[in-house]
Amino acid sequence: MTEIITPPLDMSAEDYLKYADEIARFIADYLSHPEAVSVLPNIAPGSISAALPQAPPKRPESMDAILADFKSILMPGMTHWNNPGFMAYFANSSPGPGILAETLSAALNQNAMLWRTSPAATELEETVLKWMAQLLGLNEMTGVITDTASISSLLAMSAAREAIPGLNLREEGLAGRPEVPRLRIYTSEQAHSSIEKGAIALGIGQRGVRKIGVDTDFRMRPDLLESAIAEDRAAGWLPFCAVATAGTTSTTSIDPVRAIGEICRREGIWLHVDAAYGGSAAIAPEFHWVLDGCDLADSLVVNPHKWLFTPMDCSVLFVKSPSTLRRAFSLIPEYLVTHGDATNYMDWGVQLGRRFRALKLWMVIRYFGQEGLAALIREHVRLAADFAEWVDSCLEFERTAPAPLSAVCFRAVAEPDASEERIQHVNQQLMDSLNRTGEIFLSHTKLNGRYTLRVAIGNIRTTQTHADRLKALLLEHLPEALRI
Amino acid sequence: MTEIITPPLDMSAEDYLKYADEIARFIADYLSHPEAVSVLPNIAPGSISAALPQAPPKRPESMDAILADFKSILMPGMTHWNNPGFMAYFANSSPGPGILAETLSAALNQNAMLWRTSPAATELEETVLKWMAQLLGLNEMTGVITDTASISSLLAMSAAREAIPGLNLREEGLAGRPEVPRLRIYTSEQAHSSIEKGAIALGIGQRGVRKIGVDTDFRMRPDLLESAIAEDRAAGWLPFCAVATAGTTSTTSIDPVRAIGEICRREGIWLHVDAAYGGSAAIAPEFHWVLDGCDLADSLVVNPHKWLFTPMDCSVLFVKSPSTLRRAFSLIPEYLVTHGDATNYMDWGVQLGRRFRALKLWMVIRYFGQEGLAALIREHVRLAADFAEWVDSCLEFERTAPAPLSAVCFRAVAEPDASEERIQHVNQQLMDSLNRTGEIFLSHTKLNGRYTLRVAIGNIRTTQTHADRLKALLLEHLPEALRI
Repeated sequence: MTEIITPPLDMSAEDYLKYADEIARFIADYLSHPEAVSVLPNIAPGSISAALPQAPPKRPESMDAILADFKSILMPGMTHWNNPGFMAYFANSSPGPGILAETLSAALNQNAMLWRTSPAATELEETVLKWMAQLLGLNEMTGVITDTASISSLLAMSAAREAIPGLNLREEGLAGRPEVPRLRIYTSEQAHSSIEKGAIALGIGQRGVRKIGVDTDFRMRPDLLESAIAEDRAAGWLPFCAVATAGTTSTTSIDPVRAIGEICRREGIWLHVDAAYGGSAAIAPEFHWVLDGCDLADSLVVNPHKWLFTPMDCSVLFVKSPSTLRRAFSLIPEYLVTHGDATNYMDWGVQLGRRFRALKLWMVIRYFGQEGLAALIREHVRLAADFAEWVDSCLEFERTAPAPLSAVCFRAVAEPDASEERIQHVNQQLMDSLNRTGEIFLSHTKLNGRYTLRVAIGNIRTTQTHADRLKALLLEHLPEALRI
Repeated sequence: MTEIITPPLDMSAEDYLKYADEIARFIADYLSHPEAVSVLPNIAPGSISAALPQAPPKRPESMDAILADFKSILMPGMTHWNNPGFMAYFANSSPGPGILAETLSAALNQNAMLWRTSPAATELEETVLKWMAQLLGLNEMTGVITDTASISSLLAMSAAREAIPGLNLREEGLAGRPEVPRLRIYTSEQAHSSIEKGAIALGIGQRGVRKIGVDTDFRMRPDLLESAIAEDRAAGWLPFCAVATAGTTSTTSIDPVRAIGEICRREGIWLHVDAAYGGSAAIAPEFHWVLDGCDLADSLVVNPHKWLFTPMDCSVLFVKSPSTLRRAFSLIPEYLVTHGDATNYMDWGVQLGRRFRALKLWMVIRYFGQEGLAALIREHVRLAADFAEWVDSCLEFERTAPAPLSAVCFRAVAEPDASEERIQHVNQQLMDSLNRTGEIFLSHTKLNGRYTLRVAIGNIRTTQTHADRLKALLLEHLPEALRI
């Protein structure tokens, strides 16, 4: 059937150098003007697939052919997260030192599951997380790097569940046990969907997540948290975890973590803080308040791949009690037994295989330094404040939420008597129209049922020029959006 | 406090080119003789940490200084997974095309959470997984790429749980509900620890995983599975998932998936197949039998980052019913709403952020082609068979399990009347002694309580020369191991 062939060798060193050089030039060119490519591609779903062979090649293909297809088929289908006009979701970036680190990480192919499967990756992870704790003022906490905030929060909620006394949930599970009450996690209406997804995965269920109402600035109301807990206890639920957010996805609102933490202490509830986006701000001394009260947290997630200029993926989970986290997951089969008391990060989570992610975070922190990172954060917040001020000064636009960090929620004002439906339509048109320019990518959300546009500053290359261009484009495209 | 400085720019294109070139030369040199560095580093825990500053730098540092530390502090602490003498756990590799792909992936920083956040990454993922399905003969299945088999299996078990009719577990959770019976997952005594970890995470608990006994070749016994299910049903448990393994971690035994699948069909139980290691073998026509019966599976995981020569991390989860998987996890907040019916892979799992992992798998498959990959698999199985034959021919060693794929379980024979404790001691000494040479890295396991060494062939550069060197080292070091 298949002709027997000698096992192929890996690419030669000469070829590796040749193609690495070609790719380096491609990347250098790309990074020297990332705004030259449309931020959103102008393609229809299915067009990339249609251009690719529907069956794998039988025979080896040349790297020249592969790179040619990469450039001609895949590149036109990229959404350019590195474009400074990317202001959707939370913008992020992959700066030079991060790309170089990822190249080394791929080449060395370390797997930091056990200390001995990569002492360097394990100990660099420990060290760089000590640095992160110092940068963020989380000195009582110890960290582990995961891939995403979704996983970090899932691990945190698992540790919270493990901390419930007397039920032996790790061993016996949640189901079919009359002695196990229904379990409740509390988070605000503005919390990220990953909290609910995590709760679904953990068998807590969507109803196990009680959404607490927010104040007019979209911050969780501690009084409502307190009464919800009391109500739930009276109804036989077991409250075991609260998740506060420092920088919500829609408005970057910052929950009153200290007040929430005090309630959690009193109630014996685990406090997890989702600071995936907002946590990075604490690197700048004047934004240290963003993590105020986090000394009361049992766990906290911050994502260097969001606002700390580290390529995807890199999330940091901090915990006050690593032993609780390990108790939730540690399970060591004979084939993974090693001796000694070194850190084996596989015991800190659900994933066994672990890429060498600490390397990029280390290189990024060193390359920019604390002051450089703080200056970037500071400038992004300034740009957002400037944009918010501009919105406030325009009759054509209104703000829909406070802008404490680097994202601004706003919308176009339609006709005086316009219905919410009409306002939504106008703003959708405006957003779609801007997104079609290829210069800017905005996303949207809803706040109290009101359709809202979002500008999120966070790309390392976004400057006043791009923010000003956004203002100009908004004014330029608004009349047309109002016409249709 | 902190002096105000202008936000730093990213590394210039010139600097990027300069350091990319330096790193490319370093990698080319490294890959041209990966056996030149000791496979296991000769360092004590804590020595890397001790050499690193305990506080982050305030000021930016030069890339020269960072790379110098990388070379002088981190490199000596690496375990070299790319060394052809790495025969521990499951060996893996990062070949040239994989490293180049990861470099591009880091530079473009795609996030394939939604189609529109990276059409190219989304559609390449769909396409390359269609290729994988064809390569492995899983034509009824649709795939998604995750980071690890631990997560792939967790997602599969979540889908299995979601498929339980009438209990609405996603919404209501498992706890405190009298109508929800205790839930059971079945897997063999030889299954990977990730199945138990996943069950713990999902709230099923360790006791929710019933370990089924194996035959003398370490394969799950379908008769025992059948009786366990009957016994559990009678005792009020709800059996909902069985996990068969195609290539167990200790011995690479392959469970009788067809027989297990027929039981699952009859019992209405989800069948998940953990083919993380063994699945890749099916690329070679003569090993297609490894996935025999997998047409009965509801889900299957195979890890290209194990035996398909793709850098960490890359795991593929195949499912027969993507809608069940999506039902288990899909949860779309307003800020992530998009229009149209394109694939949004965030709906297929717990993680929102998703690296562009399809790129490396695509480049590896194209660069080697089906025949090249099959030839590598074939050669690794041949090397393992050759080694097993050698063990069988030696009076000094004995095999402890069949070797159907590319790993061999064996041990040194101690004195005729040696206790199991003594045999373990001798083999530990032997393994430690070999691992200290820096030429070879072996790991161990236990089979029916018997301490066993393992040789796992899987690195792209491992050849007959390395296998022969292993034989020589075993014979050379055995006398000393027997003496102490």
